[in-house]
Amino acid sequence: MDNSILIGEKPFMNYVTGVVMQFTSKGASEVIVKARGKFISRAVDVAEVTRNRFLHDIDVKDIRISSEEFESEGKPVRVSNIEITLSKRS
Amino acid sequence: MDNSILIGEKPFMNYVTGVVMQFTSKGASEVIVKARGKFISRAVDVAEVTRNRFLHDIDVKDIRISSEEFESEGKPVRVSNIEITLSKRS
Repeated sequence: MDNSILIGEKPFMNYVTGVVMQFTSKGASEVIVKARGKFISRAVDVAEVTRNRFLHDIDVKDIRISSEEFESEGKPVRVSNIEITLSKRS
Repeated sequence: MDNSILIGEKPFMNYVTGVVMQFTSKGASEVIVKARGKFISRAVDVAEVTRNRFLHDIDVKDIRISSEEFESEGKPVRVSNIEITLSKRS
């Protein structure tokens, strides 16, 4: 079962609702909030708003950052990634 | 000794150079890259570029996210923070 949510440019609350629903309706014990590039700040906001305003029994279990390299128009491009693992307190 | 670097809107490489110098010229064993709000993505980029392009003996030791709440024009405002601790491999 994939409990990950990729943050992009949809309305902010869509993502928060998505995370909340994974924990509540779908009974997930962990949800991974993922983003790349400029959406990384937003992923942190989604995690923080979920934890502080909606679900108070959620901890940040792990945060990983990494780089992805690819070619664009013949030039090497590097983009950062983040994965924030949110976990339900047991 | 405070080995932290706060990421803002200066040119990107200023921050990378700042982190590299803390490790090399100043002999720091750890450097904390901090940012808030929209600069969080940039902090991740600074950490990743430092590790991947400049100093290959640096690990991400810890990443913390948090929220700061304050009032602006009478309204409550929440802003996210990140602290990325980079550590020299021993």
